Amino acid sequence: MPRCRLAFALYVLCGVASAAEPRARDLGIPFDGTPGALNAITDVAGVTVGQVTLIEDLPNGHKVRTGVTAILPRGRDSFDIPTFGASFALNGNGEMTGTAWLEESGELEGPVMLTNTHSVGVVRDAVIAERVRAGGADASGYWWSLPVVAETWDGDLNDLNGFHVRPEHAAQALRDAKSGPVAEGNVGGGTGMICHEFKCGIGTASRRVHIGDRDYTIGVLVQANYGLRDSLRIAGVPVGKYLRDDRVRSATNAAAADTGSIIIVVATDAPLLPQQLKRIAKRAGMGLARMGSYAGNGSGDIFVAFSTANADALHDKPLQQMSFIGNDHVDPLFEATAQAAEESIVNAMIAARDMQGDGGHYAKALPQAQLIPLLKRFGR
Amino acid sequence: MPRCRLAFALYVLCGVASAAEPRARDLGIPFDGTPGALNAITDVAGVTVGQVTLIEDLPNGHKVRTGVTAILPRGRDSFDIPTFGASFALNGNGEMTGTAWLEESGELEGPVMLTNTHSVGVVRDAVIAERVRAGGADASGYWWSLPVVAETWDGDLNDLNGFHVRPEHAAQALRDAKSGPVAEGNVGGGTGMICHEFKCGIGTASRRVHIGDRDYTIGVLVQANYGLRDSLRIAGVPVGKYLRDDRVRSATNAAAADTGSIIIVVATDAPLLPQQLKRIAKRAGMGLARMGSYAGNGSGDIFVAFSTANADALHDKPLQQMSFIGNDHVDPLFEATAQAAEESIVNAMIAARDMQGDGGHYAKALPQAQLIPLLKRFGR
Amino acid sequence: MPRCRLAFALYVLCGVASAAEPRARDLGIPFDGTPGALNAITDVAGVTVGQVTLIEDLPNGHKVRTGVTAILPRGRDSFDIPTFGASFALNGNGEMTGTAWLEESGELEGPVMLTNTHSVGVVRDAVIAERVRAGGADASGYWWSLPVVAETWDGDLNDLNGFHVRPEHAAQALRDAKSGPVAEGNVGGGTGMICHEFKCGIGTASRRVHIGDRDYTIGVLVQANYGLRDSLRIAGVPVGKYLRDDRVRSATNAAAADTGSIIIVVATDAPLLPQQLKRIAKRAGMGLARMGSYAGNGSGDIFVAFSTANADALHDKPLQQMSFIGNDHVDPLFEATAQAAEESIVNAMIAARDMQGDGGHYAKALPQAQLIPLLKRFGR
Amino acid sequence: MPRCRLAFALYVLCGVASAAEPRARDLGIPFDGTPGALNAITDVAGVTVGQVTLIEDLPNGHKVRTGVTAILPRGRDSFDIPTFGASFALNGNGEMTGTAWLEESGELEGPVMLTNTHSVGVVRDAVIAERVRAGGADASGYWWSLPVVAETWDGDLNDLNGFHVRPEHAAQALRDAKSGPVAEGNVGGGTGMICHEFKCGIGTASRRVHIGDRDYTIGVLVQANYGLRDSLRIAGVPVGKYLRDDRVRSATNAAAADTGSIIIVVATDAPLLPQQLKRIAKRAGMGLARMGSYAGNGSGDIFVAFSTANADALHDKPLQQMSFIGNDHVDPLFEATAQAAEESIVNAMIAARDMQGDGGHYAKALPQAQLIPLLKRFGR
Repeated sequence: MPRCRLAFALYVLCGVASAAEPRARDLGIPFDGTPGALNAITDVAGVTVGQVTLIEDLPNGHKVRTGVTAILPRGRDSFDIPTFGASFALNGNGEMTGTAWLEESGELEGPVMLTNTHSVGVVRDAVIAERVRAGGADASGYWWSLPVVAETWDGDLNDLNGFHVRPEHAAQALRDAKSGPVAEGNVGGGTGMICHEFKCGIGTASRRVHIGDRDYTIGVLVQANYGLRDSLRIAGVPVGKYLRDDRVRSATNAAAADTGSIIIVVATDAPLLPQQLKRIAKRAGMGLARMGSYAGNGSGDIFVAFSTANADALHDKPLQQMSFIGNDHVDPLFEATAQAAEESIVNAMIAARDMQGDGGHYAKALPQAQLIPLLKRFGR
Repeated sequence: MPRCRLAFALYVLCGVASAAEPRARDLGIPFDGTPGALNAITDVAGVTVGQVTLIEDLPNGHKVRTGVTAILPRGRDSFDIPTFGASFALNGNGEMTGTAWLEESGELEGPVMLTNTHSVGVVRDAVIAERVRAGGADASGYWWSLPVVAETWDGDLNDLNGFHVRPEHAAQALRDAKSGPVAEGNVGGGTGMICHEFKCGIGTASRRVHIGDRDYTIGVLVQANYGLRDSLRIAGVPVGKYLRDDRVRSATNAAAADTGSIIIVVATDAPLLPQQLKRIAKRAGMGLARMGSYAGNGSGDIFVAFSTANADALHDKPLQQMSFIGNDHVDPLFEATAQAAEESIVNAMIAARDMQGDGGHYAKALPQAQLIPLLKRFGR
Repeated sequence: MPRCRLAFALYVLCGVASAAEPRARDLGIPFDGTPGALNAITDVAGVTVGQVTLIEDLPNGHKVRTGVTAILPRGRDSFDIPTFGASFALNGNGEMTGTAWLEESGELEGPVMLTNTHSVGVVRDAVIAERVRAGGADASGYWWSLPVVAETWDGDLNDLNGFHVRPEHAAQALRDAKSGPVAEGNVGGGTGMICHEFKCGIGTASRRVHIGDRDYTIGVLVQANYGLRDSLRIAGVPVGKYLRDDRVRSATNAAAADTGSIIIVVATDAPLLPQQLKRIAKRAGMGLARMGSYAGNGSGDIFVAFSTANADALHDKPLQQMSFIGNDHVDPLFEATAQAAEESIVNAMIAARDMQGDGGHYAKALPQAQLIPLLKRFGR
Repeated sequence: MPRCRLAFALYVLCGVASAAEPRARDLGIPFDGTPGALNAITDVAGVTVGQVTLIEDLPNGHKVRTGVTAILPRGRDSFDIPTFGASFALNGNGEMTGTAWLEESGELEGPVMLTNTHSVGVVRDAVIAERVRAGGADASGYWWSLPVVAETWDGDLNDLNGFHVRPEHAAQALRDAKSGPVAEGNVGGGTGMICHEFKCGIGTASRRVHIGDRDYTIGVLVQANYGLRDSLRIAGVPVGKYLRDDRVRSATNAAAADTGSIIIVVATDAPLLPQQLKRIAKRAGMGLARMGSYAGNGSGDIFVAFSTANADALHDKPLQQMSFIGNDHVDPLFEATAQAAEESIVNAMIAARDMQGDGGHYAKALPQAQLIPLLKRFGR
């Protein structure tokens, strides 16, 4: 679990990952493809991530286990310079605001924010307020903003209907955003999340690909909260059929339904057209499928992809220039997206730690000591 | 302008229309089709509408001209019994939250809320909070909500970035919702809106159709805020080319761009499948086109349609029964939707009154004394 | 009706319009916007149109009234150099092949072909065969083609199930394609079509717009076969309520249903991204709506748009360059598309002539002698 | 390879599977879930399959290796009684005609036909002609048809541009359609197909699920022609990295691109709404992803799903009744779809046999003698 610092009186904010903890590939879990230096979404130059983690045991007995994760495609310039972008809902039992304009314009304006299901609104308006505060916005008198905010449901472990995420938390996540390593597991929007009935949360990974005579990076960040134990596959091995202990006492368990959700954010520096980025977003679901997911009815499996290239092409001049990769050459990016999405989920599960949550719910982390021998038994 | 009552200390809340004011067809403007008793969305049995209007001149000189409109498909049962529903974005430069699940499930859960662009978030979370407060929600421990909240931009007349819509306003709109006549013009979410460079806002209309041996009703409510003067057509007459005075000093004027937006809500008691409701939603845009709109880049033209039929079919039993109208018989509903959308917009323009807004902006209402003779000159 | 020449033994082929006939605006019907030199899709430089008209009374008593229209975005280069493109189905009761790849790739490869409903297949494969014949295709050994072929239903006037369109007709339309004036009315794929219960067929129009410091052209071609008499509006006047004679004895009449269909092809030389071209395609439906259409259940209202710009950007190199118009500047193209679509339909109705068809069906043309005074009565 | 019979002078037609050959699970390859009696799409009551296989060495040296597969949702009633249906394109580099109406109406009218890329047209029109011939169609005078025909590209092994599929082959596939076991491998539309650089073709599988107090069946049939060797996974084991011999000399190999395609047809007797069937169609791609596919740019991965329930609900009466499964209960169908799609592909690979094709191309089948020990080495 990340180291934390105190802030905002009532809350404990955690935004720095413990770099010492081994990640999935450090444990020997096999993955295809070549990761970037950090094996994180921040391997895409310019992308910054800020996370605010809210963990508190309230006097009324309720437990706060939630937070906010902010992904800024162009760091501090994200409010001023859009990226080309697109989204795809594999199963839309979830919210991602801002997608109507993303689909229509092909442009992602501002950050992508992740939080819990019942705090999407407060985070959304807070993004606008922060832009107004920091940016001297609306000088022209007709500025408006349609922020992209997505969510997964942490009502098992978090006092969801206490509405503990506040505007200042979203603002803090935006201001704290930075390049470098990204905290994983019980952090930011992923603080109270659960995957395959194991504790889960934020995960990230990246891939390097070579197209024509250039190198490009695909970076993925997931807020993962989906799936049943039965269906869990890691490295192609159906480990969920063997790791049967400590299935979380939760709604997912009671109903034996694939509730929960997963938001997958894909960043790349490869120059791509908006409809090519929609193709990228779809491939995130193929990595998810390899984990055993079948995108259950209760799961909001919604993906967004953006390209940091073509920064000069989006200032809405009458006539603009951009570059893009020809359709015949995009396959390495498709493959890398599926790979990085799969690894990001496993990273989230590996980084997460046991958590005592609200209502007496308790979620155990994936037992690494059992997982690794199990994989070896299956030749992986 | 509607009569108002005081509430919430700082704000004036207005929710009751002045029934005495003539509406578009009272003035002799011709429309096709047969309206229901109220010529309002509330002609669809069960639909209730609540509106909170915020009009205040602040000590700091800013002017509040905004509000919230709530449409409840099943009145007080709306939180417990979904309707079949669908949405369509003709031009997605706007926000309608909740559409991912609407598209995926074919069900609209809860109300449709309308407000200004920068208050979507506060209204969205407030819908959840009101449900938690009123409904004893989440008894099962795994309830969540993905409310539908849409917006248009009132930054010309309203101190938009003052964020004056608060959770209690959304709650009040929900609680005030009732059947009967619906206030139009400068009211609710439509308080500060502008159409074709005339003051605009909320408008509504309805149509009765006969299919097989049954009668059905289509009801429409618009929050209208789109369009340039040049393009305005009423009853097919290009009146915008003749009514040239008092074009609003606004962003739309400065840029000669069709900014603004229109949200169109279509209700029906006709039993329809979700994908049939998407077809209905699309036809709302055909009424809009007849007003002269070409769905400009800056306009968020987003529509939602729902059916109040089949209330028994949505309790998520394993096996359910529903009725629906065969595709070969839906045309009267399509035609009625286009007609009622067109009339709703004209009703919004006729009901709106001059408004002094923020930043010295002033919007004149459509001059009825000039309009009616002009239409007669064109044989209408 | 176009002058014809004999060919292919059994059929009369007609591909040349009579330039002497007045078109809609020659008759004084008012339209907004500025047309190009020809007021035709061929005002977009490079676009060529070829039409084969099949009119024959067969010995078995059946009557052939059908044909093929080919639109080549880049003339003879169309098989080798794609255009950026997109499609939109306002009401998908029709066929347009090739749209899956158009949507996925954002590229239109080859021509757009128009014919009758039951001849889509033969035309589709013939496009491939013609490419194989003419182009030395598949030198690489892995070439394939997914042609775009659309249709409307001419079963009232044409012996539809006689399958009279043959591969050589499609090939001839491709080879005959040329720039310059485009034949309208009872010609090509539009030979046997009916609109608003008047004889109809092919129509075209164009608009010039100015964006930044450049001029661009929007060209539209329609194969129009939709609508009921009751709903017909011309120049905003509900003329269908006044022109009551000679409603065609047809399926549309019997069922009082808006069967039939309309295919709208939009060409432009403005540089646009694929998702911008989808936005353009949507606006074609706004012109259609102004004619009184509500896109009835039986109507296949499917639109395709392409841009001839960026010819160098589509050779599938790894890294390519393209230009495009910023979203904030596209409105003139949206408005022009709606305008040109509306005028194209009226042009199709004005150019069409009475036709005796199969099964004793007879379709009268729009009576110009009644229409023009009627429009004047309404001030137009 | 299926036993064949001679017909149509020039061609060898094959429509009967050799029941003696072991299928994937007979070889011990593990799959999740419970198959139906035949482990085939025909486990869904009423579904019939007809296949015409064209294998001939022409005097001009070219080799014909292609065919047609017909899936009839309601057997001989398929032309008269639609099914509810939907499609989804994971990667639309392919053709599936008829999808505009399928999307709009939610109904699949008639059969689903599978063939090669350049024969979609001939098969499409032949479906109409066969309906006209057999059905006394168009008695009303306004019948039309928009058949669903999909394809994958067999240009490696088949003389694709010889256009050897003729109308009588499509008609024969329709007439031969029957219930019972389904031929797999080098048969019907799958005759010349290649997967992961192994010979491939038609495959099928099914699953039984229990929802509420009822049993339902999901049946899948694939025409599989996608993927690179490197990415092949079977039962989660990356066998493609170990089975390195005999990679086909083909376009796929030369370009190292995931060309080819896969069409997945999903049938069920579970009563579902159209948008629920779209959800089912999407899950087919999750089975595909588990095979290692990342849906390469060149791959037309298009899926269609239909439900044979509610046969009484589609006769287009004004008011109809249907049953459907509540969204909260659909997960077993989602899971079964992914499972059956995965097994269908493996079945296609196991059933296929080595083939000498056109242009000197040769495709080896998956070597079972190497595969099974390899899987065991990985604990499967």
